[in-house]
Amino acid sequence: MQRPRGTRDLVGEELVGIRRVTRVMSDMFKRYGYVEVETPIFEHLELFEKKSGVNVVKQLYAFKDKSGRWLALRPELTAPVVRLYIEQLKAEPKPLKLFYFGNCFRYEEPQAKRWRQFLQAGLELIGSAKPEADAEVIALAYHAIRELGLKNFELRIGHIKVLREVLAHAGVKNEVQDPIMRAIDSKDEARLDDELNKASVKEMDKKMLKTLVKLRGSDAIEKAEKAVTHISKAKAAVENLWEILDYLKILGVEEFNVDFGIARGLEYYTDLVFELYVGDVQIGGGGRYDELISLLGGEPCPAVGVGFGIDRIAAALLAQGKKPQAETLDCMLLPAGEKTLPKCLEIAQELRGAGLRVDVDLMGRTLAKAISYANSRKAKYAVIVGPKELAAKKVTIRDMSTGEQAEIAEKDILDKLRSA
Amino acid sequence: MQRPRGTRDLVGEELVGIRRVTRVMSDMFKRYGYVEVETPIFEHLELFEKKSGVNVVKQLYAFKDKSGRWLALRPELTAPVVRLYIEQLKAEPKPLKLFYFGNCFRYEEPQAKRWRQFLQAGLELIGSAKPEADAEVIALAYHAIRELGLKNFELRIGHIKVLREVLAHAGVKNEVQDPIMRAIDSKDEARLDDELNKASVKEMDKKMLKTLVKLRGSDAIEKAEKAVTHISKAKAAVENLWEILDYLKILGVEEFNVDFGIARGLEYYTDLVFELYVGDVQIGGGGRYDELISLLGGEPCPAVGVGFGIDRIAAALLAQGKKPQAETLDCMLLPAGEKTLPKCLEIAQELRGAGLRVDVDLMGRTLAKAISYANSRKAKYAVIVGPKELAAKKVTIRDMSTGEQAEIAEKDILDKLRSA
Repeated sequence: MQRPRGTRDLVGEELVGIRRVTRVMSDMFKRYGYVEVETPIFEHLELFEKKSGVNVVKQLYAFKDKSGRWLALRPELTAPVVRLYIEQLKAEPKPLKLFYFGNCFRYEEPQAKRWRQFLQAGLELIGSAKPEADAEVIALAYHAIRELGLKNFELRIGHIKVLREVLAHAGVKNEVQDPIMRAIDSKDEARLDDELNKASVKEMDKKMLKTLVKLRGSDAIEKAEKAVTHISKAKAAVENLWEILDYLKILGVEEFNVDFGIARGLEYYTDLVFELYVGDVQIGGGGRYDELISLLGGEPCPAVGVGFGIDRIAAALLAQGKKPQAETLDCMLLPAGEKTLPKCLEIAQELRGAGLRVDVDLMGRTLAKAISYANSRKAKYAVIVGPKELAAKKVTIRDMSTGEQAEIAEKDILDKLRSA
Repeated sequence: MQRPRGTRDLVGEELVGIRRVTRVMSDMFKRYGYVEVETPIFEHLELFEKKSGVNVVKQLYAFKDKSGRWLALRPELTAPVVRLYIEQLKAEPKPLKLFYFGNCFRYEEPQAKRWRQFLQAGLELIGSAKPEADAEVIALAYHAIRELGLKNFELRIGHIKVLREVLAHAGVKNEVQDPIMRAIDSKDEARLDDELNKASVKEMDKKMLKTLVKLRGSDAIEKAEKAVTHISKAKAAVENLWEILDYLKILGVEEFNVDFGIARGLEYYTDLVFELYVGDVQIGGGGRYDELISLLGGEPCPAVGVGFGIDRIAAALLAQGKKPQAETLDCMLLPAGEKTLPKCLEIAQELRGAGLRVDVDLMGRTLAKAISYANSRKAKYAVIVGPKELAAKKVTIRDMSTGEQAEIAEKDILDKLRSA
């Protein structure tokens, strides 16, 4: 009996690390005024067919329920949260600031560190079209990752509307833009050439687009502005990015790379887009999606959000040597000889009542074996209760790291352990 | 676009309550030396067909993956955790003490407070056959529920082996016992009569069994011991229960009802069984299952565990008026007039960096509207930054509960909010 292919069980350090990431990020989201929501593990299949992108739909776990309706294990969380917003929260004061953690699923060939079930976090800021809203979402993502202690991560910021307006100006219709955006996203220049030729884009426009998508670094935005200065809507998009970056600096984000090659074309982004990387592993990404809410049946409403791959973030922290603090036992109670088990249980309850982490040998082991078990459980102290000590209301306390033992009064155990 | 039938979205107080229950229980499990594990949302279908019981299998969400294997959304968590134990943890020192939280699924007709997705918690103590192990699991369940502040819950304790040994003594084979156990579990006396007749149980044995399953309360165990005194294996089971109850009292559990009518016949329990109720809602249950591990392909190994319905516990707490503490904003920054937004963002970042929960108006509202928004977000304070104050490095701080306002120096905001 094995776990399903491509899934994993989480135990030990790996799970402690994931829980730490969840706790730290959740705390950070709350500091920015976001409130938590949770949606079901499965949704109606249609929810993801509308706008989640070709690749996502190909990899869905879809199934019919007993009443014949098609359901899907969720591949991502933005569409479900937008569905929740439309169904239940649309009358709330704006902006609505929502965050969430949840497992997502994709059916793909298992490969190293790509799991069929993976934990995502994210947040959505619904209702504001202002650049300070875009900036807040990026800043929150950046500071959350920093707070975790992750080093050497890279924040890349782009703007899809700049690219789309250049294409529109070149006479490329919206639906024809989509495969071009996907080609940009793939970073495959031959494929991009191919798509641009298919769309009969003129040589001059092709050249401009191909220059644009290679712009990155400190002067990328100036260069982009110059390149599109004759296309007023594209220029406005560059100016929107300027404003966002100005606010971003005020919000304490100094390290980022502007990159007009970020297309995220497969998804529902319309304006700002950004991505977080550690090395070549993407750990987060987001952007503005001003059309998704109406596409899913709601009143048109601007929104911006970000998602995080929690497993990847936790793995990156471990790889950088940032091990989560081990969850050790404060103390293990060891009965030495028969009939002292009840006293051990009694003391254990008192210590647990005071908030300590305490275990008792439940196997009727000999003292030597019980000490070895206490060691394997990484208990800081062992408290040994023998019949003689019991009569004298004393116990032996053993420092498990040094092996030193001392006799102390039963009533002093808690103080002793607390001061240790 | 609606959420699937029988599921729900969690928002606001309901989710805050569930998170509180999870946090408090998780802390309590750790105090007893349990460590967290997590298994996938779906498993191979066979895992649940083996021993989870007829009703569970009937209500499974099962589906084929793209390689044609049958998977099922997990209906419960003990079988997956045992699978994990066999696959990965069987060589660990015993006992293994594992806890977990996770969503489970059952396809049944939606009805009040029965959801198709529900959150379960549980723990398994694997490797000890001793009565102190049984007692610890009950005590932990009891103290965890107490720690949450839940009132008027009832702990019922029974012992399946007593019933099974009486049936065995009456000549009823193991597989014929199962429908009888289910009939006992249903509390339907006519159905029980029917099953006993089908199994050709003699009148005297029938009478004894029917007396036994009605025994409850303070003298139930004495009466049970007398009733089965001539059936040595049944008597040994009663004695096992005595021992468990003795340890239970040492572990600080004084309030419980012995109830030999608890059969939980649908599942994999072999000896001790217990249930936790609030009114007529079951919020938890567990017992010893010494045969499940070998049934699922492992080496025979004794084990005892408990599961909790987290949604039901959270709902019971709310119904008892125990509202989770609202997660309010410490402060909302309100720009009064143009060009003070950057200063608001800067102050917000400083306060967030100090751990406060802070929001900034991101809609470019007028001050009056922004104050009303701060009210709707339940901010404790508003910090208003106007152009004059900005020049003087001052701000106006408004107590949102009283409406009182005062001008303070910008550098004093953090102290003022912290002392409030």
